[in-house]
Amino acid sequence: MTEAEHPFDRAIALDDLGDGRFAAGTSAQYANMVGPFGGVIAAALMQSVLRHPARLGDPVAFTINFASAIADGVYEIAAHPVRTNRSTQHWSIVATQSGDVVATATAVFAKRRPTWSRPEAEPPPPVVPFDLLARATSAGRPPWVSRYEMRTMAGEMPSDWDGGEAASSTSCLWVRDDPPRPLDYASLTALCDTFMPRIFIRRRLWVPIGTVTLTIYFHADAQMLIALGDRPLLGVARAQNFRDGYFDQSAQLWDDQQRLLASTHQMVYYRE
Amino acid sequence: MTEAEHPFDRAIALDDLGDGRFAAGTSAQYANMVGPFGGVIAAALMQSVLRHPARLGDPVAFTINFASAIADGVYEIAAHPVRTNRSTQHWSIVATQSGDVVATATAVFAKRRPTWSRPEAEPPPPVVPFDLLARATSAGRPPWVSRYEMRTMAGEMPSDWDGGEAASSTSCLWVRDDPPRPLDYASLTALCDTFMPRIFIRRRLWVPIGTVTLTIYFHADAQMLIALGDRPLLGVARAQNFRDGYFDQSAQLWDDQQRLLASTHQMVYYRE
Repeated sequence: MTEAEHPFDRAIALDDLGDGRFAAGTSAQYANMVGPFGGVIAAALMQSVLRHPARLGDPVAFTINFASAIADGVYEIAAHPVRTNRSTQHWSIVATQSGDVVATATAVFAKRRPTWSRPEAEPPPPVVPFDLLARATSAGRPPWVSRYEMRTMAGEMPSDWDGGEAASSTSCLWVRDDPPRPLDYASLTALCDTFMPRIFIRRRLWVPIGTVTLTIYFHADAQMLIALGDRPLLGVARAQNFRDGYFDQSAQLWDDQQRLLASTHQMVYYRE
Repeated sequence: MTEAEHPFDRAIALDDLGDGRFAAGTSAQYANMVGPFGGVIAAALMQSVLRHPARLGDPVAFTINFASAIADGVYEIAAHPVRTNRSTQHWSIVATQSGDVVATATAVFAKRRPTWSRPEAEPPPPVVPFDLLARATSAGRPPWVSRYEMRTMAGEMPSDWDGGEAASSTSCLWVRDDPPRPLDYASLTALCDTFMPRIFIRRRLWVPIGTVTLTIYFHADAQMLIALGDRPLLGVARAQNFRDGYFDQSAQLWDDQQRLLASTHQMVYYRE
């Protein structure tokens, strides 16, 4: 590693232990309230497949389950191709810390080829350009928030945590790595987890939360990501239902030409 | 098994082999074009956790990856609790056939307790009562379609497969088991996979398709399901993006009181 290396690359750096096993470590720059930011853990597990010598094609789908709190420090990732077909490959990935499972994941990779393609989801409403918006504050937020430049158009974090219940949890914002970094599948994975917990916006009350499972569907191919470079992405996130300790969030990440790069869903624990 | 047993219960019947291993078999009544209907395979994997002696609580999230075609006949399911916390439990599940992995799954179970709860997603538009709608045809469809009574309000399967491209892939329909069967987590799992492939509706062209991964978030607790009995559910499904051989579908299942029971997402392979 060099001084010039991006903090995200350091945060997802893996030591290849052979046989699909990798040593990883949490990053102080991507720390959350307690333990690491889940998005960077997801990205490290994704990276273990991206770096695996048996990898076929590019990510199509990825699901990570956060099985327990992860302590700051080292952890291990084991990635295993459970089934390789002609154009698709299925992966099972496990992260352990001191021998205990802290996360499980599955991934589908595929070789894709150009064919009939159409968008369907509505892109976000007319968008305020990135340059005309102020950056969302990272004051009082955990360290990882400073590693993302977020410029919010709608659905900001509450300024008054008054329990006043907003009508909607929907947010629309620009987001990119800080410092800017060329987009790739690992950083797109982490970006899918950068949306603030929907319950904070809807409930206007701070409550303990934790993502229990996160799924990402990748619509962009590698060339699209390379072409985007470090340009900001447009994100939209909304909850569908809050019930008895769990809410779901569905979100989309778009490029600045209104192309859907990833759709992503998560189920989040909350306590109050 | 008795004559009176519901075909769905026979289709997800498991022989307990001990140590979290179960023998399962495909059902002719739930056959798809090729091999079994994926929803019933998902339900059988869910059932392996529901029946596991170490199970804690009820399903919160479930993801299944269809790793390869499944042949008609026997297959084996191995369910393993990888992490048990105070109120949550994480599962890893693998289905094999003749020793090869045909599906992998993960599940999050939890003990839930009543707390602040709110809906957010819009329920479907004013709904035509079940009794006033005609049943969708199962003529020319694979056998499993006859095991679900579907009454479609919008987004029917095309009557002309003319490649004429509909503006939207959204469907809204009533759906229940046929014969009617009291709802439970296993049948709700299968119901989440009963939506016709979005590309058929959008593209109006028959193309080979296959779900590669399916995720379900459960919002209903066991008491809600029991109280619903065998009443039909309201389903809404839409695609977000079709691109280079894969499209995603997001769907919801509601009860007749506009309560969200499950939100579900899948990524589907298509070829043309």
